[in-house]
Amino acid sequence: MSKIHTPWPLEIPDDSPFSMANIPFGIFSTKSNTERRAGAAIGTLVIDLSVLETHGFFADCLLTKFNNVFNQSTLNNFASLPLENRSAIRKRIINLLDDRTSAIFNNLAINSEAILRMSDATLHLPMQIGGFTDFMCSRTHIDNSTQIAGRSANPQTFAQPMAYNGRASSIVVSGTPIHRPCGMIPAPGGQGLVFGPCEKMDFELELGFFVSKPIPFGHRIKTADEAREHIFGFILLNDWSARDIQLAEMFPLGPFNGKGSGTSISPWVVTLDALEAARTCTLDVGAATAMANLPQHLRHMTDDYTWDILVESSLKRVGIDKTFKIGRSSLRDSYWSPGQMLSYHASSGCGFRTGDLLGTGTLSSPGHSVETPSLACLLELTEGGTKPFVFGENSLTWIEDGDEVVFEGWAMTRDGHRIGFGELRGTLLPSLP
Amino acid sequence: MSKIHTPWPLEIPDDSPFSMANIPFGIFSTKSNTERRAGAAIGTLVIDLSVLETHGFFADCLLTKFNNVFNQSTLNNFASLPLENRSAIRKRIINLLDDRTSAIFNNLAINSEAILRMSDATLHLPMQIGGFTDFMCSRTHIDNSTQIAGRSANPQTFAQPMAYNGRASSIVVSGTPIHRPCGMIPAPGGQGLVFGPCEKMDFELELGFFVSKPIPFGHRIKTADEAREHIFGFILLNDWSARDIQLAEMFPLGPFNGKGSGTSISPWVVTLDALEAARTCTLDVGAATAMANLPQHLRHMTDDYTWDILVESSLKRVGIDKTFKIGRSSLRDSYWSPGQMLSYHASSGCGFRTGDLLGTGTLSSPGHSVETPSLACLLELTEGGTKPFVFGENSLTWIEDGDEVVFEGWAMTRDGHRIGFGELRGTLLPSLP
Repeated sequence: MSKIHTPWPLEIPDDSPFSMANIPFGIFSTKSNTERRAGAAIGTLVIDLSVLETHGFFADCLLTKFNNVFNQSTLNNFASLPLENRSAIRKRIINLLDDRTSAIFNNLAINSEAILRMSDATLHLPMQIGGFTDFMCSRTHIDNSTQIAGRSANPQTFAQPMAYNGRASSIVVSGTPIHRPCGMIPAPGGQGLVFGPCEKMDFELELGFFVSKPIPFGHRIKTADEAREHIFGFILLNDWSARDIQLAEMFPLGPFNGKGSGTSISPWVVTLDALEAARTCTLDVGAATAMANLPQHLRHMTDDYTWDILVESSLKRVGIDKTFKIGRSSLRDSYWSPGQMLSYHASSGCGFRTGDLLGTGTLSSPGHSVETPSLACLLELTEGGTKPFVFGENSLTWIEDGDEVVFEGWAMTRDGHRIGFGELRGTLLPSLP
Repeated sequence: MSKIHTPWPLEIPDDSPFSMANIPFGIFSTKSNTERRAGAAIGTLVIDLSVLETHGFFADCLLTKFNNVFNQSTLNNFASLPLENRSAIRKRIINLLDDRTSAIFNNLAINSEAILRMSDATLHLPMQIGGFTDFMCSRTHIDNSTQIAGRSANPQTFAQPMAYNGRASSIVVSGTPIHRPCGMIPAPGGQGLVFGPCEKMDFELELGFFVSKPIPFGHRIKTADEAREHIFGFILLNDWSARDIQLAEMFPLGPFNGKGSGTSISPWVVTLDALEAARTCTLDVGAATAMANLPQHLRHMTDDYTWDILVESSLKRVGIDKTFKIGRSSLRDSYWSPGQMLSYHASSGCGFRTGDLLGTGTLSSPGHSVETPSLACLLELTEGGTKPFVFGENSLTWIEDGDEVVFEGWAMTRDGHRIGFGELRGTLLPSLP
């Protein structure tokens, strides 16, 4: 006789990023069912939410007009639900997983269909991304990168969050390899530019957040606090950067092709509900002090407007059976909060659609040392490529062909469980001929 | 007894932008049928292509898998057809309109359904736009704008076409009013920034072109000539620019919110087939001379790689019963061609999707004088706001509330017919509270 293949209680490793306090959402497919559909991550498992939806588990959580949010190839329909519906669905998932009497543990068909090993799932881009914006909000990163460029920071950087529009077509999910980009780089000898493979390939360790409730064209947001109503959740983001291509092109119009070869994101969207326990204020004293004098749309009236999220970068080199930590830093050190970023951007009237993505910019933290490295890109870590970063018996100045860059990130609950993102992985392959 | 309501031959005014040599494509709806669908412009009429498609007029022009390209709310399906199919459909439309014996002139039902007055149509955005990029390719504009900023041009500007990514959510169709944007502008007295309505609102007279055949992520184009295979057609583009907001934000990351309040485009996409007679080389002697030394992906091997398209800006002020010409210039004067722009951008590997939009940047031409004004934005025309532009008994330094900016553009056939874009209109309204 058949038996329940995943019995209650679910085994969740203590250090799993996907604790019961998390329940992030993503899009996956399997070998036996190649249709993309929505899932939730728990421990080492994926819950197939399209199955639960089909069986009516969310019937009372959904507005009538929004049924069928999970049997979809992106999370956009789900993210466009009012927050109360999204919250009710997440709670329902937690209750179902917590309850030994629930149908997913007592109905053989549902159990087999709805619960699968994450290792059997292929994870895809979670959202259809209309617009992608990348900010520059870490004071440490601003100071270091301008100093390396031989300039001082533009004082306006601290009057408003600076950003550039990126290219949504170049966003790829964790695990997608990136080919070393080709572009216009300084000619040997320094006269003019030649076309060739990038010689200064870098990563940028960032968080990104997706828009849920749209902001109509022409509309602004009243305060930075209000922006939270428009944020669906966070992911890890690697803004691969070809520094030599970027440097040759960025005056006066800003970064362009140097950022176009790919931006990698992690597959699981960690919701604001999950991150509720991690709400806090900035650690940047200057930013906190300046808050009261900001114009209303950039001001937070509360003191728990950002999130205590740690991010960490590592490197795995071909032939070396070990992953080396590069740096660890925190969203809390960002001068500008995610709410300020979104409200600033929206103040132009440009409009936002569900699925639009904003990157926090490189999340370097202050207090960097060899013992507690806190820089979030090689440009800073190697001081513009002048001081190689040593790991084990190896070193790197810029990313080498075959290097795999691995990001992790997490918040903690008060009782010590992780609200994590899982891994964001990307390998640099040689340039295409 | 009913009779044919639009008989053969169609009356096409001699100076119509929509001559039989043109046949541009757009998206429209009507009061009696609010569904958006595809049409072609001819004289003062719109041909409802969804009707012709339904009646099978294009059956032999279409690949089986691409049927139903016109009963759609955007032209993306049509633009993604192979060029030979698009060309065959355009020829079929011309043949149907040319032929007194065709069903659209002899079948009462088809005649009434398929031909309508353009004044009865509401025109919409023609494409679903995934990515929007705006270039800076006119040597005159580059020289003038850097001189006004008190700098000299970055020499890399002539080694590669410079551009920034814009915001697709802010693209609106002709006739959509733009509210004066608010943003961070210099405080009175010059210390720091304050939030308030833009005081230096400008237009930028540009052409834009849509991508047809996609370029996969990671792929490059071999030569600038090859880029033509990926261009669907051209439209007029007004890149509304809040100069004070832009100036405070653009170092080091480039233009951002100063360009986010709206970008207006004309509704009719003029195809490369229609513009075939206007193919030519650049008039910029420096660009022509430099061509042979460019890397392959930026090089044209032919001598008819750009298009002889004239563009013109005018202003209509509230209460004045006249439209005043501001300037006329030409795509031929652009240092970089559309093919070079697309190939340069694609060289990053960022990928292009059908419907992506690229703007040429402000199309100022050399030889400006009061008699033959050739500058394509107020920044240049008023020398950074220092010399008001006089028209009639009025003047303007920057755009005033209520001003309507009107663009036109056209190429000419050898026998003197216009291949035109129609009008791109946009009125600046007061800022929202």
